[in-house]
Amino acid sequence: MTSRTRQPGDAFTHAADVAIEDLGGGIRRQILGFGATIMSCRLWFDSGAVGTVHQHPHAQTTYIESGRFTARVGSTVREVGAGDCVYITPDTDHGISCIDAGSLIDNFSPMRADFLNPGEA
Amino acid sequence: MTSRTRQPGDAFTHAADVAIEDLGGGIRRQILGFGATIMSCRLWFDSGAVGTVHQHPHAQTTYIESGRFTARVGSTVREVGAGDCVYITPDTDHGISCIDAGSLIDNFSPMRADFLNPGEA
Repeated sequence: MTSRTRQPGDAFTHAADVAIEDLGGGIRRQILGFGATIMSCRLWFDSGAVGTVHQHPHAQTTYIESGRFTARVGSTVREVGAGDCVYITPDTDHGISCIDAGSLIDNFSPMRADFLNPGEA
Repeated sequence: MTSRTRQPGDAFTHAADVAIEDLGGGIRRQILGFGATIMSCRLWFDSGAVGTVHQHPHAQTTYIESGRFTARVGSTVREVGAGDCVYITPDTDHGISCIDAGSLIDNFSPMRADFLNPGEA
């Protein structure tokens, strides 16, 4: 099963059944559970990988599962590590740079339809 | 700082600064980042701890960070472990029982105001 064919509302996502997408630049993403109003994804960053500053209308939390990162939200930059969390207000510039390789859980509201159908807003 | 005094919209949540609440029955909870439309929490379960079946109007994803659990959503029961995820449609019965001690990341939309102000809906 690949994430491209998944539909919102499935109750159970077993990690072994879901494709891990290589986003390039040392970043990989696996789409986990989602419905219309929420979506969770797991991301892996290599050391030095950069999630460039961007914004979107979705609210977001990012839970740092492992590794060490420099996170920017608006004009504030902080170092975060395992157990920390970042909250991003809709339409706010944010980005993250990986110091030590690790993984993140990104959660969005509403769901990121653009992750399922690249090219759509 | 305790989670009771926290306000929505803080960009950075450093785990060391936030209280871990003992919910009893072998379950502890730490409120992480949140705004009006999304909230993330980390929960620790001892082996044998039971999150009893309940429902709420918030959509939810639960990411299994570690450990082994039996999760119920509606009438479906499945065993889940590290890396797996559960999605719960609003107003749907769900519960989780811990087989091997571990931690979960619960994400809600909208935020759980009742976690900040116990007694409120």
